[in-house]
Amino acid sequence: MNGKFISIEGIEGAGKSTQISFIRDFLEARGKRVVVSREPGGTELGEQIRALLLAPRKTGMSEDTELLLMFAARAEHIHQIIKPSLERGDWVLCDRFVDATFAYQGGGRGIDRDRIQTISDWTLKGIQTDLTLLFDLPVAVGQSRVVKRQQQKDRFEQEKAVFFERIRNCYLQRAEMEPERIKLIDASRDIESIQDQLSTILTELLSA
Amino acid sequence: MNGKFISIEGIEGAGKSTQISFIRDFLEARGKRVVVSREPGGTELGEQIRALLLAPRKTGMSEDTELLLMFAARAEHIHQIIKPSLERGDWVLCDRFVDATFAYQGGGRGIDRDRIQTISDWTLKGIQTDLTLLFDLPVAVGQSRVVKRQQQKDRFEQEKAVFFERIRNCYLQRAEMEPERIKLIDASRDIESIQDQLSTILTELLSA
Repeated sequence: MNGKFISIEGIEGAGKSTQISFIRDFLEARGKRVVVSREPGGTELGEQIRALLLAPRKTGMSEDTELLLMFAARAEHIHQIIKPSLERGDWVLCDRFVDATFAYQGGGRGIDRDRIQTISDWTLKGIQTDLTLLFDLPVAVGQSRVVKRQQQKDRFEQEKAVFFERIRNCYLQRAEMEPERIKLIDASRDIESIQDQLSTILTELLSA
Repeated sequence: MNGKFISIEGIEGAGKSTQISFIRDFLEARGKRVVVSREPGGTELGEQIRALLLAPRKTGMSEDTELLLMFAARAEHIHQIIKPSLERGDWVLCDRFVDATFAYQGGGRGIDRDRIQTISDWTLKGIQTDLTLLFDLPVAVGQSRVVKRQQQKDRFEQEKAVFFERIRNCYLQRAEMEPERIKLIDASRDIESIQDQLSTILTELLSA
């Protein structure tokens, strides 16, 4: 595979969307073909699964069901988009990948890390990101940005602050465990400082 | 748990629906409360997942995705219906359960048996049927019965006869491996003979 696989991670309000546009432009300006995608979703079926996952439900949804649906969408995304794109030499830029599952379903919902690892190994079959950019900021700051958007809250956004604190902590632990793959970005800074850091990281990956 | 868990298995056209009604009536006449359900489905979310699984798709669906969706629906079904019903002493009568996944996604699609077992163990956490009734008949006989119904064919029904031959063989192998749990019913016989056999099997289970 000649393409590189980059995922963008972080809690809501971390400014992922803005930075994804910047990263795509940065890479395209350097001659790379970039496929931008997102999880859960990224395929027609994946987006239908995403709708099931996000819709608020009277009866709730068991943690195991949520995890299996996440990986079902991911299996289809890998099969249809990620693997073929990398194989033809494109770069894949994905808004969330498997680290999000460890953070949200592990840290957030409390599913045991080893149980997630079992399904992850089963589904990914060795696929992993070359680079994961973790946009980190205090939960309260992220939440205040999300509130400004005035959207209807989905099943995850309806969770309390403590849920997102656990997710943030889990993300930070993963970045600490895998510093080569996961780069920590302080997303509370101004956009220019963040993009300076992104440029340095991406330049390094381009020359790797 | 005081309730018993019975699943009904077999390829299309094996007459499962008719026999499910007979079994429910038989058990209710002997004082049991019976919850009738089906897989994939059985819950609101499960039925939505079922719709995703059955809808014909231009882009297809990867085998891993299909398997994970089956188990996602099953996890929710166990959590919301099967476990609570058995715990309050009800009997659960389910049109297909995990043996169908080994037959359809294993025998039919060709997913490795051990790979299915990994997800099965992860999801079921020890839940298994007390009795599985396998309604067996030649594929051609089953198919001719289905054609008579004149329905639009779903994503599974669109498969060729060889797909159902592999499923039938896988079902038969499982019945051979677990003769105590899985009872083979020759579904090509007349209804009266089948129901005589069902009565014998159920009477035995009631006195167990």
